[in-house]
Amino acid sequence: MSGSEDERIAVDVNNMFRQNLRGEGGLKLEQVERMKEEVEEAHRALSEDRPGFMELPFQQDDVVKRIMKLREERQDRYDNFVVLGIGGSALGNIALQSALNPPYYNENENLRSGHPRLYVPDNVDPVRFDRLLATLDLERTVFNVISKSGTTAETMSLYLIARQRVAEEVGKENVQEHFIATTSSHSGYLLKIARRENYPRFAIPDDVGGRFSVLSPVGLVSAAFCGIDIEGLLEGAADMARRCEEEDLWQNPAYLHGTLQYLAYHEGNKMSVMMPYSHQLRDVADWYRQLWAESLGKAENRQGESVNVGPTPIKALGATDQHSQIQLYMEGPDDKVINFIEVEEHGREMEIPELYQDLDGVNYLGGHRLSNLLNTEKQATELALSSRGRMNSTIIMPRLNACTNARILGQLLYMLELETALAGELFNINAFDQPGVELGKNYTYGVMGRDGYEEKRAEFYERAEPDEDFIV
Amino acid sequence: MSGSEDERIAVDVNNMFRQNLRGEGGLKLEQVERMKEEVEEAHRALSEDRPGFMELPFQQDDVVKRIMKLREERQDRYDNFVVLGIGGSALGNIALQSALNPPYYNENENLRSGHPRLYVPDNVDPVRFDRLLATLDLERTVFNVISKSGTTAETMSLYLIARQRVAEEVGKENVQEHFIATTSSHSGYLLKIARRENYPRFAIPDDVGGRFSVLSPVGLVSAAFCGIDIEGLLEGAADMARRCEEEDLWQNPAYLHGTLQYLAYHEGNKMSVMMPYSHQLRDVADWYRQLWAESLGKAENRQGESVNVGPTPIKALGATDQHSQIQLYMEGPDDKVINFIEVEEHGREMEIPELYQDLDGVNYLGGHRLSNLLNTEKQATELALSSRGRMNSTIIMPRLNACTNARILGQLLYMLELETALAGELFNINAFDQPGVELGKNYTYGVMGRDGYEEKRAEFYERAEPDEDFIV
Repeated sequence: MSGSEDERIAVDVNNMFRQNLRGEGGLKLEQVERMKEEVEEAHRALSEDRPGFMELPFQQDDVVKRIMKLREERQDRYDNFVVLGIGGSALGNIALQSALNPPYYNENENLRSGHPRLYVPDNVDPVRFDRLLATLDLERTVFNVISKSGTTAETMSLYLIARQRVAEEVGKENVQEHFIATTSSHSGYLLKIARRENYPRFAIPDDVGGRFSVLSPVGLVSAAFCGIDIEGLLEGAADMARRCEEEDLWQNPAYLHGTLQYLAYHEGNKMSVMMPYSHQLRDVADWYRQLWAESLGKAENRQGESVNVGPTPIKALGATDQHSQIQLYMEGPDDKVINFIEVEEHGREMEIPELYQDLDGVNYLGGHRLSNLLNTEKQATELALSSRGRMNSTIIMPRLNACTNARILGQLLYMLELETALAGELFNINAFDQPGVELGKNYTYGVMGRDGYEEKRAEFYERAEPDEDFIV
Repeated sequence: MSGSEDERIAVDVNNMFRQNLRGEGGLKLEQVERMKEEVEEAHRALSEDRPGFMELPFQQDDVVKRIMKLREERQDRYDNFVVLGIGGSALGNIALQSALNPPYYNENENLRSGHPRLYVPDNVDPVRFDRLLATLDLERTVFNVISKSGTTAETMSLYLIARQRVAEEVGKENVQEHFIATTSSHSGYLLKIARRENYPRFAIPDDVGGRFSVLSPVGLVSAAFCGIDIEGLLEGAADMARRCEEEDLWQNPAYLHGTLQYLAYHEGNKMSVMMPYSHQLRDVADWYRQLWAESLGKAENRQGESVNVGPTPIKALGATDQHSQIQLYMEGPDDKVINFIEVEEHGREMEIPELYQDLDGVNYLGGHRLSNLLNTEKQATELALSSRGRMNSTIIMPRLNACTNARILGQLLYMLELETALAGELFNINAFDQPGVELGKNYTYGVMGRDGYEEKRAEFYERAEPDEDFIV
């Protein structure tokens, strides 16, 4: 079964509908009813194709065992765990860490309980990587290099630098202990390197793309080393997968949420804001940003017709962004859907003390809990948006923070993945490719001198020089 | 004069124009020409009104002296500097710190050269604040509480908690040494508290709103304590202010960039992506996100007519987001303008070593510098977007990172502020208020029990209960 009621996440879509919004905004119930057949068809297609991510919650007992074994053998060797990966090979790692481990984990030894610090540079900024290496004791550091093909220029560049520095520091013969390779099981440059250097290896399944890989070794290895309950995470995902075997969208949170997003897009609400009221979920919103944008932003549909379609995901954070973005969401064009995430139990409580009882504008705060203020602000913002006719929904998470809640996060991640796949079906595009990134990548290869990209190199250097009159 | 040529930031708008883009995308030169009068009028209005932020680069010699004096007296007392503020009282602090101090500054003592760590919790998440207090040695910590009115519920709640904890830790009689108040000079609850507790005080000018306050004590105090050259920052802003006295938009980077954004909005490109190719500028993009959204997202124009206008700012990061958002920017709807920031000299260099020379897909990287890869990726992405007809521009910064470059950052911040004010004039809205945030705030006050908000409290509790059928 899918876990007890109070351990389940829920999706509240009341405020997506005109009947619950002031004014003319919002969807009509008939619009959803009319989608039923399409959703059922999408369900059949997904059930038949079973894209790779759908297998991850179920088929990884051996993978988990291997990860736990490596952690067992090595955990006392490392104070620092560095993920060298970019995009889908980085965002999942960051999201798991900030959602499930305590804030200030890296800085505060007491909060780490013996686990290594986690670093995910996720960029080729020279200042950032230089200062990172200056901060780490390389003797006590392991790098997990993540790239399916081993051709990702950013990841491989950082790897080459790290490989040299580690060799200088610990001696060439000991390099093996400081790297893990997460890559294809059967092809590619990183696999070649890993074999040559005798690095421990984990496989990225062929049919799991970067943005759908958080529940594969891509996300699981760093999580396990940092003490996160990866089995719980997978169980949570499996719970959600089972709940989502239901083809009726009113029984299926992923389908319901995905369908409403799709309908809203066609009403002109082309931006999907994800706004968790939990600082710990900010990086889940960032992870989702890739998932939603890269899966659904497509030039052509599956018949090869030009469509240039795709909602724009926006990452926001409550209560912080009430003081930054809510003005726009309330009063600007009605072109967004706000998807809140609310956490019922935050795992820590802080009482606001009763000080300055003579000061009217301050004294009312005393005696409340901070979590009460945070969740009140969410509900107040929700009500304010609804009273302006602005569509919004809420994903409700029973609890967060602390490893025991990995199971709840697993539900959320899988739900958002499946929702994205469903939306891909409804938009009638391929949600699993990313042809639009090739051109820029190929120019970079050309300029950097990679064999076979001479034409792109020429094209790059033949581009028009910028006109100085247009530089001010 | 406005600083030497190679110390100036520049704005390259070539790729905003149809002549430089493939296909039908982009602006026509005539459109800009037709804006000339409007921009000149806006220039006259701004020169007459002189909104508060325009004075900040010039009138703060005494403020800077007072900040430096406090720093001088107290710098050995603190290992930790905590900013308690939210929105405009937090984002500027974060932006200055990450742009001008080294990455991993908090974690690595060597990189701090004796300055305190900086923490900006910027939220009322109980987990985050609890773990922060557990991480700090309160004996060695100072809190700068920032709120003009002292009624900001989030900031005051954190202050009350911190005030009690500090008193418990260091004794009531020593509390004074652990707080600074940055607030109105003449009214409000925080001023009252600061007087009662005898905290050092810095004034937020009446006519400087939160999102325009980074160059006031709101941003300067924490920056100074963390070793940032605040005089250089203000000089840079003054350099840009002088450059922008020019009413001709082809001579004025703020007006040119602002006008093109405005035109693009009316062409249907309602999202402004700011995408720095420097990890250190990611939080400048976040600061800008508030500036642009809260200033320009307005329900009514200055004649009180309903307009619901406002571009949506989006924060992106190169090269990272090439692996997350570029697919959408290349192939999705043509509804964005991409504003890159390019840094010519990153301040650190890292050479990629020549390893694995027999591996074709990897060996070409060796011998290049990491900064070369990063900037090549920017230019490759720019070319790819242009070849798809997607409007883009580039703000070019000569150098970054290290305190000596505060002067360059100061130019950028002032330019973006002025650009926002100009856009406010063009959109014909009040860029300096935020009426849309009041409703949610008032519901929160009501629920929390603040005097005078009983009606909003009633309204909140009278709202319709969510229909269970719409919760899945």
